[in-house]
Amino acid sequence: MRATVIHGPRDIRVENVPDPQIRRPGDALVRVVASCVCGSDLWPYRGVTKTTSPRRIGHEFVGVVEEVGSDVSSLVAGDFVIAPFALSDNTCVHCRNGVHTSCEHGAWWGGVDEYGLDIDGGQGEAVRVAMADGTLVATPEMPDDSMVPSLLTLSDVMGTGHHAAVAAGVGPGTTAVVVGDGAVGLCAVLAARRLGADRVIAMSRHTDRQAVAREFGATDIVEERGADGVARIEDLLSGTGADAVLECVGTRESMQQAIGAARPGGRVGYVGAPNGGPELPIRELFNRNVSVGGGVAPVRGYLEDLLADTWTGAITPGRVFDLELPLDQAADAYEAMDERRSIKTMLRP
Amino acid sequence: MRATVIHGPRDIRVENVPDPQIRRPGDALVRVVASCVCGSDLWPYRGVTKTTSPRRIGHEFVGVVEEVGSDVSSLVAGDFVIAPFALSDNTCVHCRNGVHTSCEHGAWWGGVDEYGLDIDGGQGEAVRVAMADGTLVATPEMPDDSMVPSLLTLSDVMGTGHHAAVAAGVGPGTTAVVVGDGAVGLCAVLAARRLGADRVIAMSRHTDRQAVAREFGATDIVEERGADGVARIEDLLSGTGADAVLECVGTRESMQQAIGAARPGGRVGYVGAPNGGPELPIRELFNRNVSVGGGVAPVRGYLEDLLADTWTGAITPGRVFDLELPLDQAADAYEAMDERRSIKTMLRP
Repeated sequence: MRATVIHGPRDIRVENVPDPQIRRPGDALVRVVASCVCGSDLWPYRGVTKTTSPRRIGHEFVGVVEEVGSDVSSLVAGDFVIAPFALSDNTCVHCRNGVHTSCEHGAWWGGVDEYGLDIDGGQGEAVRVAMADGTLVATPEMPDDSMVPSLLTLSDVMGTGHHAAVAAGVGPGTTAVVVGDGAVGLCAVLAARRLGADRVIAMSRHTDRQAVAREFGATDIVEERGADGVARIEDLLSGTGADAVLECVGTRESMQQAIGAARPGGRVGYVGAPNGGPELPIRELFNRNVSVGGGVAPVRGYLEDLLADTWTGAITPGRVFDLELPLDQAADAYEAMDERRSIKTMLRP
Repeated sequence: MRATVIHGPRDIRVENVPDPQIRRPGDALVRVVASCVCGSDLWPYRGVTKTTSPRRIGHEFVGVVEEVGSDVSSLVAGDFVIAPFALSDNTCVHCRNGVHTSCEHGAWWGGVDEYGLDIDGGQGEAVRVAMADGTLVATPEMPDDSMVPSLLTLSDVMGTGHHAAVAAGVGPGTTAVVVGDGAVGLCAVLAARRLGADRVIAMSRHTDRQAVAREFGATDIVEERGADGVARIEDLLSGTGADAVLECVGTRESMQQAIGAARPGGRVGYVGAPNGGPELPIRELFNRNVSVGGGVAPVRGYLEDLLADTWTGAITPGRVFDLELPLDQAADAYEAMDERRSIKTMLRP
């Protein structure tokens, strides 16, 4: 089959790789309907993280089950399924605590499973899914093709934006600020509104992204950054910061901006993978009682809940996709995302 | 009157200072019944923080109102009052949010008020209390002398321990670890049990403090520190860390221990004033979804609630006092605290 392989900085190739097959009784074989490129895929693409040897890449996909192993009980061939960006058993103590990304048997797409067997990346024609019962969530029935983009966001960006909102303590009547206008940031806007925030300030300089943010429920847009951005937020919020700040970038500057935008006693929920080690300034947090929570989003734990609202059309997070390419043009997809010409790019096998 | 003045490292003197008097309509004049020495008073005592010129010190006291200014409406002469360690108006947006330590008109004992007038320290015979309506809380009636120690803890250590528990998300059925066996750490044990934790592990090497921790509801004691301490906690908690970790020290080592003791998705609540800038290791927090919250405790916001349980005898946090000295021996009190001969020392004018 065809699948993406990263060879080094700016070197994404679509190659012939072995056809996946059931290898353990808990496996499922999934024919990919759609996959996509993640902001975090751009770290190795840009060479910020090293690629020491060619490896499979991609961790977001939806598809149709072709075959299941003998131990799989919750899925049958023909099911349309959503794959979260991490594999988990959904039964261990950490999964029961809702932290599926710390699953005792957890694994990652493109990595190896607990038996040492290779796991396919998500950007390909098919995928062997280990721990299929724990990992995959099936839709109630076969979705209309128009719903595929929204279902695909449940693999990662919508669940990740939701995690930022949960970690920041967004609830009815709260004020929220979202730092970052990538797909995760935009989904964070949608998540904050869905959880009841009555004021959602999106920080964005790009008119196309501002438009999506508005569509997702942003009540205000702030274009300024850094100290100017924080001052603008205080203007909008009667001189205080926000109850909840959703940090969806992962740089030192974005985290500093997020902390500055929180009111005394406010909470920062962060989901941007921290690159460059932006250690947190504890004295500043201490003096103002600003808390910081979040991390690698346990999207599996949120999947049923978010799927329900996506299925009814209450939310349409798929709006973040503004480019669709065939899998064979994956290199163009990475380039478009890297150059910020595309908010998020879908790949169709 | 007599009051403590710090002149430099290990140089605490009890001196004659001007008698306080009502200077603003919102002031109250309080005759001190008891005050005490705080762990944070030891930072300047040890020279860790500089004392550039002699200044008044002490921020915990209870006493009896002698006189009130013309604007004071909630207090009358004769009231027994508890003074939290920070002054606040109890009406501004931050106070309404429960973050009294960020009060828009806030001030500190031994500092200056919003009019630039000196504020007395708490270790003295009497105190001018600015913003008396917002700052002081009166007891239902004159307490028995035996209750004074417990009431005095509501000035700081009990409210601070409670803040650690709240920030760490302690609730019914949770597992909690308390790092630090000073008066705040011990009160944190009491607070965690009061909030419903069914397992409270106190980290302490001192038998006298372990005894108080047990009395306050600790279910387990861990004497090991660092990685050994974390391993011991995991042993006690079926291989996972704790839901809630209450960090009551404020050093790099104690914070690292606290983060290590939290389970994936767990919360660290910290109240130890961070000395030496233990910046938080964000990548470690991110990978395990451990959140960190807390800060300078807004004890005024908790005072009515904790007073109610202290008044009925449901909690007796005053057990942390193991030494009582006359005010004139304040230097001995500091020495006893510094040498850890005393958990907490009370001063009686």
